[in-house]
Amino acid sequence: MDIHELTRDLHTKNGAKIVMLVADGLGGLPMAAGGKTELETANSPNLDQLAARGVQGASIPVAPGISPGSGPGHLGLFGYDPLKYRIGRGALEATGIGFELEAGDVAIRCNFCTLDDDGNIADRRAGRIPTEESAPLARKLREVSIPGIEIFVEPVKEHRFVVVLRGPGLGGNVRDTDPQATGVPPLDPVADDDASQKTAEVAREFLTQARKLLADQPKANFHTMRGFAEKPNLPTYEDVYGLRAAAIAVYPMYKGLARLVGMEIVGAAQTLDEQVETLAENWDSYDFFFLHYKYTDSTGEDGNFDAKVARIEDFDAALPKVVALDPAVLIVTGDHSTPAFLQSHSWHPVPTVLASDCCRPDGLHEFNESSCIRGGLGQFEAKHLMTLALANAGRLGKYGA
Amino acid sequence: MDIHELTRDLHTKNGAKIVMLVADGLGGLPMAAGGKTELETANSPNLDQLAARGVQGASIPVAPGISPGSGPGHLGLFGYDPLKYRIGRGALEATGIGFELEAGDVAIRCNFCTLDDDGNIADRRAGRIPTEESAPLARKLREVSIPGIEIFVEPVKEHRFVVVLRGPGLGGNVRDTDPQATGVPPLDPVADDDASQKTAEVAREFLTQARKLLADQPKANFHTMRGFAEKPNLPTYEDVYGLRAAAIAVYPMYKGLARLVGMEIVGAAQTLDEQVETLAENWDSYDFFFLHYKYTDSTGEDGNFDAKVARIEDFDAALPKVVALDPAVLIVTGDHSTPAFLQSHSWHPVPTVLASDCCRPDGLHEFNESSCIRGGLGQFEAKHLMTLALANAGRLGKYGA
Repeated sequence: MDIHELTRDLHTKNGAKIVMLVADGLGGLPMAAGGKTELETANSPNLDQLAARGVQGASIPVAPGISPGSGPGHLGLFGYDPLKYRIGRGALEATGIGFELEAGDVAIRCNFCTLDDDGNIADRRAGRIPTEESAPLARKLREVSIPGIEIFVEPVKEHRFVVVLRGPGLGGNVRDTDPQATGVPPLDPVADDDASQKTAEVAREFLTQARKLLADQPKANFHTMRGFAEKPNLPTYEDVYGLRAAAIAVYPMYKGLARLVGMEIVGAAQTLDEQVETLAENWDSYDFFFLHYKYTDSTGEDGNFDAKVARIEDFDAALPKVVALDPAVLIVTGDHSTPAFLQSHSWHPVPTVLASDCCRPDGLHEFNESSCIRGGLGQFEAKHLMTLALANAGRLGKYGA
Repeated sequence: MDIHELTRDLHTKNGAKIVMLVADGLGGLPMAAGGKTELETANSPNLDQLAARGVQGASIPVAPGISPGSGPGHLGLFGYDPLKYRIGRGALEATGIGFELEAGDVAIRCNFCTLDDDGNIADRRAGRIPTEESAPLARKLREVSIPGIEIFVEPVKEHRFVVVLRGPGLGGNVRDTDPQATGVPPLDPVADDDASQKTAEVAREFLTQARKLLADQPKANFHTMRGFAEKPNLPTYEDVYGLRAAAIAVYPMYKGLARLVGMEIVGAAQTLDEQVETLAENWDSYDFFFLHYKYTDSTGEDGNFDAKVARIEDFDAALPKVVALDPAVLIVTGDHSTPAFLQSHSWHPVPTVLASDCCRPDGLHEFNESSCIRGGLGQFEAKHLMTLALANAGRLGKYGA
């Protein structure tokens, strides 16, 4: 049984506010045996104070050992089983550049490539053509015209761009045209089910016109198509939780993920301080606030332990202004770990703390990786966090009599 | 895979006795920040002694954040996934007053109501008519007669009574007739599937006759029907565990829940001491004993912290006589938490201890909320407890070669 069948039945409405602060990639590792993690190294008195009155746990983003991307990582935190709900690559790419997908849209990741005189692929990434050269070419492809289909072409970065097809009867189940090799021609788009036949035809026509439009280009004289994906069909926060939800994020990817579950994007904050101001300004208009903080992840990806420590301290310094708003439930967590030691997303459970008037404190006074594994929430799958949030906000009725 | 597919295959029989003591609503919360829970406050040396030789854990009744009613709470402890097996409201109400449902029965919760001269509902609860007035009216409805259907009408309390229909071909999928509003007439019973058409017809005929029988009543001149439910189809303890199981409970609800999984109700104890005597008297006749202690829940529901502490101490004082029987496995747990602070059932995990000669002690010497989260059973879903009990009793063979 999906937990949303329960929450949809049991949720009640009251004025209680829930705030979820997501420090992306929060969890870490020591750089050397016997050392401390980034969070253990950071001076974070406000997080520790929250831990003292709250309850901690170690959040497993998807399943033990699974390192998630941003999509599944956030879906879990939002309470959507990331093994049940999947966001196709094309849809995630479109989401990541802030494109607002509509129901029925099919999004496709495209790569500019170089064809040789025989029409075989000489370079799968068109020599990693710089963005300033590739973006105008992507825009040129907006000249492609197919009757009955609305077409969007959006530059991304270097050789990458996105195509979105909008029209009736488009399925997302079409195979990649990138042969993953050079010296061979690109593949034809082939539908894997009846519902996607029309998509494959449209894609073939797009490629035919694109080949002509790009024919004179020295490097990017063609492109491949990968990760065909329909807009994922996710129930909304209002539907499954009865929450008017707001997202406060700086980067398009996280705004996009929040939009997919029906959150409204509020403000245009560029810094954490501005994000917290946005939170305060919108306090009366929403029940739930998702605030995304990027830099604990990006510093981890860079392998910069000290920078990640500093970014955690920045995050900690912003906490009192959130606490001052006195939310019924305040959660600090991350969508996954990004240890500087690994320079990548990892599977390690994420320190998570939940504070409310009716949580059961666990006697811990520090917030970090060592502490959270002894916490009252135990080790739990991220998808359960929203149910706990609702319960602690008094927004969930009794199951059964 | 349902865990019962495993236990059904793997269970073996021996003379080992399992005792499960359920202190209803055992888990609690501090009344103020930094305080202790009810169980932490209680002087409970016998529980602590059990903890010292046993292994503790925090039982999650249904899923994180879900506060269960008595039905799902006990199903979990009995090892029946409470999200898979559901007890409909009518069936639970019948169970709660000690009515022994048979396979195929449909049970209905009924409310006396007051109709005005136009046939609209003026009061959905007939002015909360006192039991001494409503019970004779419920018995009067036993005059309703429908060919081929055996009908039982049982008073409950105030405006509430239960109707059970027994006969071939009765499904339980019929909509409530209570419109949840006044100034409008009651609804007709409408079947939601083919298998329930006959039930809806029988219910309509029942209501027609009841309207005549009650016509002269000043307050309770009609009634609504809600929560139509078939007897839930639960496999028995004998079937899935190979256990001859006995239930020792004071209140009808818990006897009824135990009966639904095939336990036999033994004795007629009214106090905890009498319950323990009943346990001793029946020691040789059963393999498994479920003993239900109500007052840790009712004091929590009353918001009476001190009374709950006292009731925990009473429970603790009764423990040595159970220990003296030397069961192979002794479990103390609760079906959910009922913190006096919340005055209601809650989602918080329940302190649980299991002692056997082959459990793996966890070095803890106190039994309470703070202790159990560091215990050897970790945080676990209640539905796993029976499998652990069987294993610790040497009653479960190896899975696979």
